[in-house]
Amino acid sequence: METRDPNLSVVEMRVRFFETDLMGIVHHAAYLTYFEAARVEWLRRRGVTYADWARRGIHLPVVEANTRYRAPARFDDVLAIETRLTEVRSHSVRFEYRTLRGALVIAEGSTRLACVSQGAQGAEDHKLVRIPTDVKDVLSRGELPTAG
Amino acid sequence: METRDPNLSVVEMRVRFFETDLMGIVHHAAYLTYFEAARVEWLRRRGVTYADWARRGIHLPVVEANTRYRAPARFDDVLAIETRLTEVRSHSVRFEYRTLRGALVIAEGSTRLACVSQGAQGAEDHKLVRIPTDVKDVLSRGELPTAG
Amino acid sequence: METRDPNLSVVEMRVRFFETDLMGIVHHAAYLTYFEAARVEWLRRRGVTYADWARRGIHLPVVEANTRYRAPARFDDVLAIETRLTEVRSHSVRFEYRTLRGALVIAEGSTRLACVSQGAQGAEDHKLVRIPTDVKDVLSRGELPTAG
Amino acid sequence: METRDPNLSVVEMRVRFFETDLMGIVHHAAYLTYFEAARVEWLRRRGVTYADWARRGIHLPVVEANTRYRAPARFDDVLAIETRLTEVRSHSVRFEYRTLRGALVIAEGSTRLACVSQGAQGAEDHKLVRIPTDVKDVLSRGELPTAG
Repeated sequence: METRDPNLSVVEMRVRFFETDLMGIVHHAAYLTYFEAARVEWLRRRGVTYADWARRGIHLPVVEANTRYRAPARFDDVLAIETRLTEVRSHSVRFEYRTLRGALVIAEGSTRLACVSQGAQGAEDHKLVRIPTDVKDVLSRGELPTAG
Repeated sequence: METRDPNLSVVEMRVRFFETDLMGIVHHAAYLTYFEAARVEWLRRRGVTYADWARRGIHLPVVEANTRYRAPARFDDVLAIETRLTEVRSHSVRFEYRTLRGALVIAEGSTRLACVSQGAQGAEDHKLVRIPTDVKDVLSRGELPTAG
Repeated sequence: METRDPNLSVVEMRVRFFETDLMGIVHHAAYLTYFEAARVEWLRRRGVTYADWARRGIHLPVVEANTRYRAPARFDDVLAIETRLTEVRSHSVRFEYRTLRGALVIAEGSTRLACVSQGAQGAEDHKLVRIPTDVKDVLSRGELPTAG
Repeated sequence: METRDPNLSVVEMRVRFFETDLMGIVHHAAYLTYFEAARVEWLRRRGVTYADWARRGIHLPVVEANTRYRAPARFDDVLAIETRLTEVRSHSVRFEYRTLRGALVIAEGSTRLACVSQGAQGAEDHKLVRIPTDVKDVLSRGELPTAG
């Protein structure tokens, strides 16, 4: 798979049984959880564990999400989620996604994430903040070479 | 609440514990399930049980979904979902949603739903079809008066 | 419905579309979320908002859960969850549940919940604690009369 | 990892963000979805795609599930699910599970699954059936050697 674009990572996942609905297809809300898991992997491949940011009180909540469903996915399908960073602003970033089964496009989408810091009062205490410089640096890095 | 618009229904629901995430707020994917439950009630108030359509083999899968998250919702919040039919085409319909806690807008969104018939082969056998006339009639009806 | 037992409350809920799976029935994991929502209502009817306890740092995480599935439930079914407090120990409580559709038993289950206090370090800082006296008092109270 | 027991397979998975709740830990209902995904892999390692059985109309719905939660799991944890077939009866099978993070036991559980055939009427038409002989053969097989 061609991933020369430094902003692109391709993450595979397999559809789980509980993600289907009575139509026999993947429920449309499940795709947002696929995009989320793909973003976490996107960061990991650039050396970042999102869980560490969360422990530092830096969160990237989704403030906008858009999805177009092109074809149904089914239980046990192996899906490839192409995940691309497409915009970095002072307080938010945007990712775009394509979900494929083989060559078939299953879904396309985008999310905007705001940068929020969580204070001592927990969820009561969210504040929109500038994306820290070290976070920005990670975002512009391509995938790190994997050992092996 | 003004609900004179025949295409509008307001449905209340309470945030469940499992719908929250480690940020202490409602997970963004949960809103798609709120919109879905609100659509089902929207239809019920016009005399239609969506489950009956499903049994007839008529499905309205989501083919496009967009959400903007304005403010976080929290566990046990009572949310009002304003649900409005905004477009009826030959093969699809569009709904728009506003989620409020009191006067505060929590999220806004829209979904487009295609009309699909499911043949004897189940999920393998979906076909895009014209919205049946009796379904269209229901959509243009306002809320039925409730007994009592 | 006979609810003279002070430890019993009956909570109704309607099956949502996303809770079904490709078998066309409610997915087995969804029942744990029904039991959870029913516990929250069980407390509310005794004057307690569980969300307030959570804000005080008192949590009642599930430490054991058992379910027997007797008959399938389907999309849009209205289910009654009989929820009964059956044991109060120094550090934990036990609830039992019966899920019914009309007279038909759909599922039976039980959960044990431990009392845990969450310190300043958040989730890293859970400690098993004695159930506070005011919490115990609430548990032995029956349903409060509803206004109206 | 010692997997000489032919009835045992160990499946790893990573905790996803949406599986957490406001306590900052994995929600208890998520474990049933982990056990389910682990069973699907358990079968795959014995040459069986559960999705194929589902297409043949053979389903293995969960009729009983029990879980004991020993320690919290957190976002991004890599969990190992030890999955063991412990009983094969004429119409049902039983699996036991241990969820570990490193050497720490996070959760233990079991599920009983009935064998059900689904007729032409779909979900309206479930019948308890004897486990087919070819299904039984698969269950007693150990993991197949993986190509390498």
